[in-house]
Amino acid sequence: MERADCIVGYTTYVRLLSADLLGDKEVVSTGMTGEIERCRTAVERARAGSNVAVVCSGDPGVYALAGLLLEILQESGSLDTVPFRVIPGIPAFCAAAALMGAPLMHDFAVVSLSDLLTPWETIERRVQAALEADFVLALYNPRSKKRSWQLPRVLEIYRVGGAGGRPAGWVKSAAREGQAVRLATVDTLDPEEVDMFTTVIIGNSQTRLLNRAMLTPRGYMAKYERS
Amino acid sequence: MERADCIVGYTTYVRLLSADLLGDKEVVSTGMTGEIERCRTAVERARAGSNVAVVCSGDPGVYALAGLLLEILQESGSLDTVPFRVIPGIPAFCAAAALMGAPLMHDFAVVSLSDLLTPWETIERRVQAALEADFVLALYNPRSKKRSWQLPRVLEIYRVGGAGGRPAGWVKSAAREGQAVRLATVDTLDPEEVDMFTTVIIGNSQTRLLNRAMLTPRGYMAKYERS
Repeated sequence: MERADCIVGYTTYVRLLSADLLGDKEVVSTGMTGEIERCRTAVERARAGSNVAVVCSGDPGVYALAGLLLEILQESGSLDTVPFRVIPGIPAFCAAAALMGAPLMHDFAVVSLSDLLTPWETIERRVQAALEADFVLALYNPRSKKRSWQLPRVLEIYRVGGAGGRPAGWVKSAAREGQAVRLATVDTLDPEEVDMFTTVIIGNSQTRLLNRAMLTPRGYMAKYERS
Repeated sequence: MERADCIVGYTTYVRLLSADLLGDKEVVSTGMTGEIERCRTAVERARAGSNVAVVCSGDPGVYALAGLLLEILQESGSLDTVPFRVIPGIPAFCAAAALMGAPLMHDFAVVSLSDLLTPWETIERRVQAALEADFVLALYNPRSKKRSWQLPRVLEIYRVGGAGGRPAGWVKSAAREGQAVRLATVDTLDPEEVDMFTTVIIGNSQTRLLNRAMLTPRGYMAKYERS
């Protein structure tokens, strides 16, 4: 970002950048549904010779803009001429997991509950697969004002599958103002407390709740103590 | 790490730290199979009042030591008395994904192919579930000198499932000396090139290969162009 001439991003994220970093660079910020506009602007500026940095939260490669930028680079025929690089970051589910203890120590699946771009049948099939194959499950976009029945439906799938007592928890606004952490179980987690800034994690069959932490053991202890 | 009195870690990772950072701190480094010893030492020092930093690569909460430390804190009855905090990092599969383009833009599963601590049947069930539920799949520990048949078996599951033409690739030693990136398909990926420092990513049914990148579209274009 220091070397960029132009910084493009969702308004909320651009506001998190320091004035020092922004300096006198061109700044293009747009609202939440302006993804395409944002990425097209970035590609236009880059085609005109600017060194452009597109800012995301979390990891730009996890439900963020890396893919859309690639699509627009291709669409504009500039895939070969405009240098493009993804700088990885800490994804929201890792920031959330760290605050909850160590829930992701074994195989896990990450599913977005937003059915704006994905049919709900596909999402539900993935949740069911995560339960049946005993993955730890991290949920993005678990709930918004307009999408309130999806998370209860996921919890119901777990209950019907006999996993109502399984540890489940959430983190809201990880590492930001208003950060909150809740540890519960599938049965006791209250969907009403969850919003679109929340990541939900549901344990696998081995996950347990210690007093202030959710732990999915990897099996080291059992293995090495025996040998 | 700056504020720690004692730094504990796998020898290879401790060597990556600068002499400035290490200063005159106590440093406890052990070989690769010394996880339990490493974590027990860390907990002992912390119980004795030291400010201890345990160093992992990637994210300490993804197949690393956060969970084992919690287990040992519990075992030693110090869960309530020793402050414990996980600092999230960039997991290896995100560093790998960034170098491959944007393969993780939609729901994904992460599976370790190491059957030292997990029965192979469980691992295979998860791979099969990832294929059937159309997750992008990231594989940790895909191959070592002693474990050479597991990755070919995973590729066979995909071929049998009609997904032989699906984009697949790997990154070796992401962001380290010797970094290498390969983009291929399930049919053309050569397991012999893969080692224990490699992360493999297999696309979902929508993933495609652009000339220098692997892209899983999230669906933005299709959605917004239509509306």
